[in-house]
Amino acid sequence: MTQLRIEFWFDFASTYSYLSAMRLDPLARAAGVGVTWRPFLLGPIFAAQGWTTSPFRIYPAKGRYMWRDMTRRTQALGLPLQQPDNLPQNSVLAARVAQLALGTPKGVAFCKSVYGAEFGQGRDIADPVVIRACLEQSGLPCDMIEAAQSDDNKRRLRRSVEEAMARGLFGAPSFTVGDELFWGDDRLEQALDWAVGHA
Amino acid sequence: MTQLRIEFWFDFASTYSYLSAMRLDPLARAAGVGVTWRPFLLGPIFAAQGWTTSPFRIYPAKGRYMWRDMTRRTQALGLPLQQPDNLPQNSVLAARVAQLALGTPKGVAFCKSVYGAEFGQGRDIADPVVIRACLEQSGLPCDMIEAAQSDDNKRRLRRSVEEAMARGLFGAPSFTVGDELFWGDDRLEQALDWAVGHA
Repeated sequence: MTQLRIEFWFDFASTYSYLSAMRLDPLARAAGVGVTWRPFLLGPIFAAQGWTTSPFRIYPAKGRYMWRDMTRRTQALGLPLQQPDNLPQNSVLAARVAQLALGTPKGVAFCKSVYGAEFGQGRDIADPVVIRACLEQSGLPCDMIEAAQSDDNKRRLRRSVEEAMARGLFGAPSFTVGDELFWGDDRLEQALDWAVGHA
Repeated sequence: MTQLRIEFWFDFASTYSYLSAMRLDPLARAAGVGVTWRPFLLGPIFAAQGWTTSPFRIYPAKGRYMWRDMTRRTQALGLPLQQPDNLPQNSVLAARVAQLALGTPKGVAFCKSVYGAEFGQGRDIADPVVIRACLEQSGLPCDMIEAAQSDDNKRRLRRSVEEAMARGLFGAPSFTVGDELFWGDDRLEQALDWAVGHA
């Protein structure tokens, strides 16, 4: 039997990816579905469609709504929410370290730690001090920050962005089950159902 | 006791509003919540943020995804889906007639009939022949098409658009419970919960 599996595509700058990152594990476990965490960057994808920043900044009504909606959703889920100062945050450093960390069993803990620091405590994830604390918290060595700057690791992240674009991703979080694409935290349950129903 | 109530804001050009229009009634009834149907037009709201057409046309990857997602959702809900030729459809005539028809007990049936013709059968709702058939199907007089062109009725629809913009709506479907805004078919259940929990 093939193991059921979904891919979870996330950008650390994405608010709704925080929700999925925090609620994904128990739901996937209950469904018997494995999860591959796929860090990527929305910046190049947004740029390709003519956006130079987050759509939540380009369309202020949408941005105001998003924070109100995030407040309601995090309250319902029992998650902390603290709006960081500079939005969208520069997520390149965090994504590079995650790319490397996810090659270890502690990578998922690192990703959750980054989301918790960013949207739970409002900290700046472009700051290496914050990323170092997240590595420590998840039991990973601090020098992963330097190791993540290798050409090879940078290239792997770039290839993920290219793969995301080629597969039609245009936002985060996204979930893929084979060629099937699901966009948005609201589609997490449906992506898991799809993996189970189309094995 | 105040009657629990939500407002359902819809544009006939909006694909996801079709889903909400078709599944709203039984859910609201089960929750004990009344629904005020509020036709409005996204065109002027999109124009105010610099869009001259649907975001699903402006961002093709999003458009392709939307139809795939609509296919999955309508299959799950047991609704027909037929993509109309010209998208987004011009929904002004349908909205004006709905504005008038919703003053009668058969207005909701008319709105559902329009959505069914448009996205269930792929018909052109800018065509008065189609709107006339929807009026007949819902037991309303065909001359409502002419009556809907009165200055007073046009003005009422324009005021709805202004109210929508003032209340921060930026897409459809949207749901409001007092000042609380919910965007997207995915938020229908949460809007109903909110109405019940914050009465």
